[in-house]
Amino acid sequence: MDSIKNRRTIRKYQQRDIPADVLDGLLEEAFRASTMGNMQLYSVVVTRDAEMKAKLAPAHFHQPMVTTAPVVLTFCADFNRFSKWCRLRQAEPGYDNPLSFLNAATDALLVTQNFCTLAEEAGLGICYLGTTIYNPDQIVDVLHLPELVMPVATITVGYPDECPQQPDRLPLRGLVHAETYHDYTAAMIDDIYAYKESLPENKEFVAVNHTATLAQIFTNIRYRKADNEAMSEVLKATLKRQGFRK
Amino acid sequence: MDSIKNRRTIRKYQQRDIPADVLDGLLEEAFRASTMGNMQLYSVVVTRDAEMKAKLAPAHFHQPMVTTAPVVLTFCADFNRFSKWCRLRQAEPGYDNPLSFLNAATDALLVTQNFCTLAEEAGLGICYLGTTIYNPDQIVDVLHLPELVMPVATITVGYPDECPQQPDRLPLRGLVHAETYHDYTAAMIDDIYAYKESLPENKEFVAVNHTATLAQIFTNIRYRKADNEAMSEVLKATLKRQGFRK
Repeated sequence: MDSIKNRRTIRKYQQRDIPADVLDGLLEEAFRASTMGNMQLYSVVVTRDAEMKAKLAPAHFHQPMVTTAPVVLTFCADFNRFSKWCRLRQAEPGYDNPLSFLNAATDALLVTQNFCTLAEEAGLGICYLGTTIYNPDQIVDVLHLPELVMPVATITVGYPDECPQQPDRLPLRGLVHAETYHDYTAAMIDDIYAYKESLPENKEFVAVNHTATLAQIFTNIRYRKADNEAMSEVLKATLKRQGFRK
Repeated sequence: MDSIKNRRTIRKYQQRDIPADVLDGLLEEAFRASTMGNMQLYSVVVTRDAEMKAKLAPAHFHQPMVTTAPVVLTFCADFNRFSKWCRLRQAEPGYDNPLSFLNAATDALLVTQNFCTLAEEAGLGICYLGTTIYNPDQIVDVLHLPELVMPVATITVGYPDECPQQPDRLPLRGLVHAETYHDYTAAMIDDIYAYKESLPENKEFVAVNHTATLAQIFTNIRYRKADNEAMSEVLKATLKRQGFRK
């Protein structure tokens, strides 16, 4: 499938709306993804309104795609709808726990990727925002998410107005294990990361940031231990607030 | 995309191997999925050996696909490889926390769905096993997963030997929210679940199991509160054992 093989993240979009029937059609097909016990433990909030995009922007560290894309989609793990159905049918739901959150998050993420594939096949471009699980509390507030609903992924979507270079990927041998996991030796790590470290843009990145290695860009600048630990606390508190930690 | 629109879970497979180059090609394309900071926080363990399938079977409650499919794939959240690279490059990783687990699990699940789409496009059939996060401790043991590696999804794959009926899905209006989440009233729940409840196979299911409602099949038989809570404890303990709970 060429759209998957040639995919790249699109951050610049044409000033052109996505028709409602096009978006609905893509979502409806995306919902064909595997789902636990056919429970469909997800909801999608569609943001088109400029004011709502502006309200979502801080949660995504003001990445410009949130306000410049015609559509922002927030995919949520959702045990609220199913639990309400249970209660209305003399059935007592028991889904206010971490396992159920991970079940629903899994359902939501499979649908998210399915949507991205379908959107790209239809000529749209997408950007996956990892920030959703960094500031879930803010997203809960802006989108009015009730108990047992937790945001897990945000996608900005639109007609592409750029065609950036495709990023590198690690070699297959570094990602796939036959029969059991074969832990990595130093020589294997050197081999797996050699190409990435050799790329001119990554060498430039190291030079500009005055770090000794490319790895230090990640640990000292982009994804720092102290930030991860602080955001883990927010994540845990939000899961509790949303009722998934009983 | 017809393969997504017409998809159904395949549990019966032809007695026919998947060539290694076919599987490798599908995995390589699947790894084109979005990944946080291009870190590729996943590993895939490929099980072809009959003895290994037999060892995995109990973790999946002996669902027959685990031993009858030519290939079983276990997709893992993996911060081990990245952390080893950091340590070998004078960079101190800080990914032994819940947020980092969810980041890596997200990466792994996007790749899982991408693989499923590509496999189905190539004429293969897949079954998604939700049991992976029910018994992660057993899978860690069987596949020798080290610290910072956690199984999140298992897929059985093979050439289809059946074409089951496509399952129902809830109507789009029950899953999509415009601008903010609109919580469900009793009337909305009745509307959203009406079609599912009307299906002859679901009425039969209720009759055979002697429950009052379809929802009770889920709460009293398939996904019970006590089981979810017990498995939540296993999940938490396994995340701790794998080093993601500091």
